[in-house]
Amino acid sequence: MNDLDQAKVNAFSEKMLDILNGSMLSLTIGIGYQTGLFEVMANLPPSTSEQIAAVAELKERYVREWLAAMVVGQIIDYDPTTNTYSLSAEHASVLTKVAGPNNMARLTLVIPFLASVQKTIVNHFHKGGGVSYSAYPDFMNLWAEINADRFDATITQKILPLMPDVVEKM
Amino acid sequence: MNDLDQAKVNAFSEKMLDILNGSMLSLTIGIGYQTGLFEVMANLPPSTSEQIAAVAELKERYVREWLAAMVVGQIIDYDPTTNTYSLSAEHASVLTKVAGPNNMARLTLVIPFLASVQKTIVNHFHKGGGVSYSAYPDFMNLWAEINADRFDATITQKILPLMPDVVEKM
Repeated sequence: MNDLDQAKVNAFSEKMLDILNGSMLSLTIGIGYQTGLFEVMANLPPSTSEQIAAVAELKERYVREWLAAMVVGQIIDYDPTTNTYSLSAEHASVLTKVAGPNNMARLTLVIPFLASVQKTIVNHFHKGGGVSYSAYPDFMNLWAEINADRFDATITQKILPLMPDVVEKM
Repeated sequence: MNDLDQAKVNAFSEKMLDILNGSMLSLTIGIGYQTGLFEVMANLPPSTSEQIAAVAELKERYVREWLAAMVVGQIIDYDPTTNTYSLSAEHASVLTKVAGPNNMARLTLVIPFLASVQKTIVNHFHKGGGVSYSAYPDFMNLWAEINADRFDATITQKILPLMPDVVEKM
């Protein structure tokens, strides 16, 4: 152990901490997606946790805790002089429905699906075998939602122009 | 949308991609912990996926896929000239039992626990209420394992010296 490159150990420990922090943050971002908090905040000026919870129709105590996690994770901005929280237009463009099929808050929802089969996969390392779609309840709903946005975003600009004869007949 | 600071959008998209990649990586690291692959690799010279799978007594096809994820995630090193994989002593010091209570591969196991209650927590944002320990099956086993390592690591060096009269009577 004395021959270890300590700088390399420290750098890797930092990397692992980032991975762990990011993993927990992604689950918390998933809560923001499912509660509608990102959409609510994208349409609000800088607001207190009470104001945000009132518009979102959620319990303020939980919203305040979520906001704290989002501030520490540098997703949402906090102004201590006014005790208000805001979601910048730039971050909203990545985390809300204006991002269409590329909404990255929605993409975090795949993590709980993958986490739910981890133990099953560990067993397969020993015994072989696979994981069927049926092991992921509701996964198809998420996928359908993402694909619907993708088709909405591309059908007139990209897909139909590939078939000029179809367009002519429409 | 035209007034967006595009550099800020791009930087945040990169950050979100890192978070998503890290989340999936942490689940894959958790598989490495549970299959014993990190411990096996810490004691092997650079080896092929067949050699690693044979020592770990696991299906090679799955081990090869896991190794590929670990190489892309920069956890494990790959030498394409010999088709061998290796876990550096520095990374092993963070991801195996030599890290004692600070084994960060084991810490990734909290992610599936947290993921499993995400939907419940979303409901609580609407209705209030909490999540009981019983919602996390096996969590206490993980916690006991971590604490046992912590006590092993600290009892003679840190805890007993706080009680000189006890030490005298031993």
